[in-house]
Amino acid sequence: MSQVTCDIGISLDGYMAGPRQTEADPLGEGAEELHRWMFEQPDENRAELDAITAAGAFIMGRNMFGPIRGEWAGDWRGWWGDEPPYHAPVFVLTHHDRPPLEMEGGTTFNFVTDGIESALERARAAAGDRDVSIAGGAETVRQYLNIAAIDELRLHVAPILLGAGERPLDGVEGSRFEHAGVRGNELVSHLTLRVTPA
Amino acid sequence: MSQVTCDIGISLDGYMAGPRQTEADPLGEGAEELHRWMFEQPDENRAELDAITAAGAFIMGRNMFGPIRGEWAGDWRGWWGDEPPYHAPVFVLTHHDRPPLEMEGGTTFNFVTDGIESALERARAAAGDRDVSIAGGAETVRQYLNIAAIDELRLHVAPILLGAGERPLDGVEGSRFEHAGVRGNELVSHLTLRVTPA
Repeated sequence: MSQVTCDIGISLDGYMAGPRQTEADPLGEGAEELHRWMFEQPDENRAELDAITAAGAFIMGRNMFGPIRGEWAGDWRGWWGDEPPYHAPVFVLTHHDRPPLEMEGGTTFNFVTDGIESALERARAAAGDRDVSIAGGAETVRQYLNIAAIDELRLHVAPILLGAGERPLDGVEGSRFEHAGVRGNELVSHLTLRVTPA
Repeated sequence: MSQVTCDIGISLDGYMAGPRQTEADPLGEGAEELHRWMFEQPDENRAELDAITAAGAFIMGRNMFGPIRGEWAGDWRGWWGDEPPYHAPVFVLTHHDRPPLEMEGGTTFNFVTDGIESALERARAAAGDRDVSIAGGAETVRQYLNIAAIDELRLHVAPILLGAGERPLDGVEGSRFEHAGVRGNELVSHLTLRVTPA
């Protein structure tokens, strides 16, 4: 059955982004190390990578889509080049309307201005019987956990400390968790949690 | 070969103690849930429980030993009753000297006033070829990680959020980590990390 999932690459001290995020360094200092397991050990982590990309629609916050604030200016098309890795509709939470942006490989960025519940409805409709994935960033994950909308939270814990940055689980009060599985190798521990309303 | 280990029960948001610690609630609010796996599923978690108690000597901070601050007053003998679960020498870090306190079952509390390196030396000597365990609390764990004295960090992650309290990995800069194993069930994920100097 279709569910709402959320994959987060996270440090031992709970950060999914490092300090001093800039356009040149969108994850913040040190945070690219969170994702070494994806790039250096794709075969060992094939099941988790496949699960991330299996979703039929994605939701992300505006800060994850790009560094622009306020009205849309220029032609920002995301961080991911001409063919983003989503290959599905992506719903971007924003206060500023913009026409849908069709990319290569099946990704379309849709801009949603009427809130997180509306974005979830539209993503569910687009996903059909596939999952909806909450793609990030930290504030977006927190908001969906606080309305208990996420069914499965998958933490990909990298063995590093970031020391500062954004912690998606700070300020979360709407969800309860239960371990549903754990697996890993030297670059990552994959913790799967079932989530229910608190 | 003898090594220095450290077992921490920790929440998904990285706390090993909750907010508002008191003498009646020494772990702080909500934190007793960190340890449900120990009490409710001892058989499923036998290997981890055995590893914790296998150490030949333990080191703990004064706040973990008791709520008393300043000079020793009265006859505080720890939180654990007449027979503490250590069954080995325990070295308590303090600024205030006190004669050793022999308890039932092989636990002796020794009070060390000349610093964490000295406590580690004494604990190593007492442990012989068994491990030395850094028992807590958060500040003591942080200090030993910052001098890169811990060889194996074992995080026992409970599927709860505490929201506030003490995070032992905040402010740690002296150690590097690598995943060495992971295992778990619904109440806990056991993450074993090898630690080397940063």
